Amino acid sequence: MSITIAQRLALCRQAMQNLGVNACLILSSDPHLSEYLPPRWQGREWLSGFTGSSGTLLVSEQNAALFTDSRYWEQAQAELQGSGIELVKLQSAAIPAYAQWLSNIKTSSKSPVIAIDKHVLACSMTNALRDAFTSIDWQISFDIDVLNPIWTDRPALPNAPVYEHQLPHACIGRASKLAQVCQYMQKQRATHHWLSSLDDIAWLLNLRGSDVDYNPLFLAHALMDAKQLQLFVVPGKINATLTALLQEDGVIIHDYAAAGPSLAGLPEGSRLLIDPKRVTLGMREHVPPHVQVIEQINPSTLLKSCKTDQEALFVRQAMAHDGAAMCEFYAWLEQALGQELVTELTVDEQLTRARAKQPDFIGLSFPTIAGFNANGALPHYRATEQSFATLSTPHGLTATGLLLIDSGAQYLGGTTDITRVWAVGEPSAAQKRDYTLVLKGTIALSRTRFPLGTLAPMLDAIARAPLWENGLDFGHGTGHGVGYFLNVHEGPQSISKAIPHADMAMQAGMITSIEPGLYRPKQWGIRIENLVLNVPVPPSVPDAQADEPEYGHYLAFETLSLCPIDTRCIDTSLLRPDELAWLNNYHLEVLQRLSPLVSGDAKTWLEKRTQPLNLL
Amino acid sequence: MSITIAQRLALCRQAMQNLGVNACLILSSDPHLSEYLPPRWQGREWLSGFTGSSGTLLVSEQNAALFTDSRYWEQAQAELQGSGIELVKLQSAAIPAYAQWLSNIKTSSKSPVIAIDKHVLACSMTNALRDAFTSIDWQISFDIDVLNPIWTDRPALPNAPVYEHQLPHACIGRASKLAQVCQYMQKQRATHHWLSSLDDIAWLLNLRGSDVDYNPLFLAHALMDAKQLQLFVVPGKINATLTALLQEDGVIIHDYAAAGPSLAGLPEGSRLLIDPKRVTLGMREHVPPHVQVIEQINPSTLLKSCKTDQEALFVRQAMAHDGAAMCEFYAWLEQALGQELVTELTVDEQLTRARAKQPDFIGLSFPTIAGFNANGALPHYRATEQSFATLSTPHGLTATGLLLIDSGAQYLGGTTDITRVWAVGEPSAAQKRDYTLVLKGTIALSRTRFPLGTLAPMLDAIARAPLWENGLDFGHGTGHGVGYFLNVHEGPQSISKAIPHADMAMQAGMITSIEPGLYRPKQWGIRIENLVLNVPVPPSVPDAQADEPEYGHYLAFETLSLCPIDTRCIDTSLLRPDELAWLNNYHLEVLQRLSPLVSGDAKTWLEKRTQPLNLL
Repeated sequence: MSITIAQRLALCRQAMQNLGVNACLILSSDPHLSEYLPPRWQGREWLSGFTGSSGTLLVSEQNAALFTDSRYWEQAQAELQGSGIELVKLQSAAIPAYAQWLSNIKTSSKSPVIAIDKHVLACSMTNALRDAFTSIDWQISFDIDVLNPIWTDRPALPNAPVYEHQLPHACIGRASKLAQVCQYMQKQRATHHWLSSLDDIAWLLNLRGSDVDYNPLFLAHALMDAKQLQLFVVPGKINATLTALLQEDGVIIHDYAAAGPSLAGLPEGSRLLIDPKRVTLGMREHVPPHVQVIEQINPSTLLKSCKTDQEALFVRQAMAHDGAAMCEFYAWLEQALGQELVTELTVDEQLTRARAKQPDFIGLSFPTIAGFNANGALPHYRATEQSFATLSTPHGLTATGLLLIDSGAQYLGGTTDITRVWAVGEPSAAQKRDYTLVLKGTIALSRTRFPLGTLAPMLDAIARAPLWENGLDFGHGTGHGVGYFLNVHEGPQSISKAIPHADMAMQAGMITSIEPGLYRPKQWGIRIENLVLNVPVPPSVPDAQADEPEYGHYLAFETLSLCPIDTRCIDTSLLRPDELAWLNNYHLEVLQRLSPLVSGDAKTWLEKRTQPLNLL
Repeated sequence: MSITIAQRLALCRQAMQNLGVNACLILSSDPHLSEYLPPRWQGREWLSGFTGSSGTLLVSEQNAALFTDSRYWEQAQAELQGSGIELVKLQSAAIPAYAQWLSNIKTSSKSPVIAIDKHVLACSMTNALRDAFTSIDWQISFDIDVLNPIWTDRPALPNAPVYEHQLPHACIGRASKLAQVCQYMQKQRATHHWLSSLDDIAWLLNLRGSDVDYNPLFLAHALMDAKQLQLFVVPGKINATLTALLQEDGVIIHDYAAAGPSLAGLPEGSRLLIDPKRVTLGMREHVPPHVQVIEQINPSTLLKSCKTDQEALFVRQAMAHDGAAMCEFYAWLEQALGQELVTELTVDEQLTRARAKQPDFIGLSFPTIAGFNANGALPHYRATEQSFATLSTPHGLTATGLLLIDSGAQYLGGTTDITRVWAVGEPSAAQKRDYTLVLKGTIALSRTRFPLGTLAPMLDAIARAPLWENGLDFGHGTGHGVGYFLNVHEGPQSISKAIPHADMAMQAGMITSIEPGLYRPKQWGIRIENLVLNVPVPPSVPDAQADEPEYGHYLAFETLSLCPIDTRCIDTSLLRPDELAWLNNYHLEVLQRLSPLVSGDAKTWLEKRTQPLNLL
């Protein structure tokens, strides 16, 4: 029998009292600092009832608050109703907000203590938390997991099997990847390298898993030295054949539980390379004091962000298949509107069905966002069985407006992520204006060429400028890095207002999204997203004498995503001739590349929706 | 009788030996960390012969190197010839380059020491230097000024009189400014605040001086508490009347030499606010350990960067007078070309003469850069009596090409800085293309609207994008902050590739330059620079119910500089209609605002050079 949120909070406060702490901070995190959490680490959801993928719960003796950013405010408001948990709307950095809230609530202690579980806390956050809480005269105990004693039916560790990412899609062999990381280690004079981040481990070993939704990952830690890699996984996940294969490349399987002790056993004179953003404080504390720690980004994070030419070929294939699936889906959608029952849920079903038919399809890369009108204004909206909008019945449209669909899939040859907005009925002038302004941002950045090594955040303003010009903006980043049959959110580059640092330098082969948006709360939302590949621009005047071109090397974006952009939503009076030319060229390419892959209604639809536009 | 550079270096090495150090680093800096140095602190020039405004000299037992960035490479190469000093061309951060160079040279010591004078070293640089040098097994001695024993005719402290910046131009009273800084101090619970930066002190006290060229500053330190400000200046610089006036506002004059001891005497329990970027290590070391130091940007730096509406009115006036002077000058230039002797030096003389006639003119705000053709490709070029280009003689043009003029002045009501490029004869197609691409950058950024608080570096890419599109770029920043009858380079905002931080947030009232460029070494240089004012954009849909506009507050740039842009250099086929419209509007405004201030040839010239352009 399940218990209510209020009962859970009461248990939590009882546990806090038993453990001698006055508050606890429940992060949305796991021992691998992943984006998608295995059920075992969905404790914040269990204790608060808030199901959003980002948010932190702070429970004190008498109060409780959930901190989340604007993407989740509406959802949190609904889900927290009646729980007694206050919603704190994060406008900027989270840590100062925790301290601020805590400084305003009552506590029974003169020297109060807050529990934060070090096993799910990034090393890189530790100091900021400590500074923030000591400034309001609270101490932190990092050694307490308040959830453990009260969460009696806490799920076990996931035990899905690990499988190999094979040739031809795994273009670089495991031994070669290990050697590349070894080179980096040598440069830093590191004898050992620790990895807790699942995307790094999966990439490095050409292994994949199904331990979490959407990201083809498996739970593991890894300890590498110049000779071997110790891989810590739950026993039974890797079969004997694969174990033997791995051993050939110097990869030795150990029990997941042996991870910490292996760090503790590092010999004197070791120099350990770790990425403080991707290792927990709990794991870090296993490192004995005689080991010298080198804090650096994981070499594999940089290596895997730069796709090879061969990988890029597979990605282009995957994009074409993804585009073909969308043609099939949109052809169905357009004929179904007004003739069949179409809801946000059917959209998800039909689109997923079309994708699932494609070669090398593995699954979705994130939960489909299909948001009609007001729902589209919630950037992370997800329709549920309990709450969804209906677009049409067999008897006609139930409403006109804009349908935003943000979706993507995992293929053996790449990861996709695309957003389109479609007209249901005739869009209004205001909708067309918004749509066109967002499209101008997508086009402006897609066309930008920039020096190799430009820090990705420095490009952000280019996508926003057309919106800014009209006093408009959007609250999320412009673009995130994307993995290769790996995570749909994968750094190090990020086109956003984030403070740039050297690791965010744009390099050839990186794949990034370009996805400006505009959200009219309770009305409609617009986002037009493509994935783009960083490709080197050949020097315009090849100079045999010069080693280096005078003004440096440049990158351009190759647009990878292939799907028409709904021209019915465009106010052409707002487009410049050069913008229109970009759009027509894009549609021509979409037509040429997808035509061989579609037939029947899908082909007819593709031809109709890629017709060139003329200026008014 | 002057001695040679070689002799000076020999003296330096002798002093190093006497002082027990193996190398010394001579910074281009002074105890106030100023941009323009009083002669007393031009030791790097004295010892190396390199006269550029930025560069560091490193002298070891057997070697010597001068480190400077691309702006000065050609100049340094020429000036260092025969000195035995190697030029190290800085491509990125300087400190790693010093260490790199030092690690490759010979030293007689197994534990070598390098001397760096703490009295001219910013606190904020100390750790980076220490880390860099210890990583190559060198120790730093911060307590040695190698120059002092050898520079026997070292100039004395400047003793120019201090004067008051008065009403109506000094729009905010001294007492009011002091109160504003006091408020900031209270917020940080600071009992004291130390200032060594001359622009901050001048602004705060409405005082000006002439201790350095171009910046109307005087050498001083200041120690502030809630009741008074102790001002440390060389005795005799402030007369009795001004001393009495200052005293009324709680400003007490002390000897410049008493600055350090006053810090040393801070009472127990003091909390001292200092800006580590603008205080030297030498000064910082006077602070006793019982004083708590709060490291923050100087409050006055933020306050003075936001010009008041009244100040902006005076700035607009100053810009109009500056523009009128340029009309007079350019009218002369165009008729003189081919008829008179015109050199880069006459350009400077005539332009300065025209400015000097304007009301409230005080002096130039930086040395005029007048660079013809190849000289224009050196962003910080300065013609000298020994070396200058000739544009024309009484018998005709000596060459055709492009003349770049970057110039500005100090007026009681503001500081100007403007760059224009003028055709001498008919520009080539390649020159027109370059010119137009740069102009597109100036226009693109000038038109940009952006959210209040945007970090200035995030706007940089907008000005570069038209150049990047063509595989071109420029090596300097896009824009610097500008003072109000103060320094022509004045932060905290900076539109550049600098890593942004919170202090660089764009606020209403800030004045910044927009100056993209393009440099073709040994051929020509182009830069088109205006100063712009951050002005709030009124909300398009005023919503009486909402406290805050839904998408935030926006700023636009008001272009302040008023001077035609040479349309003869434009390739109109590269301009879009919207860019052309911007240019024609700008020229219309220049015509309207300058017409009342000019007459005769200047007026005729103004009318001719502001004619609207049509698209091809």
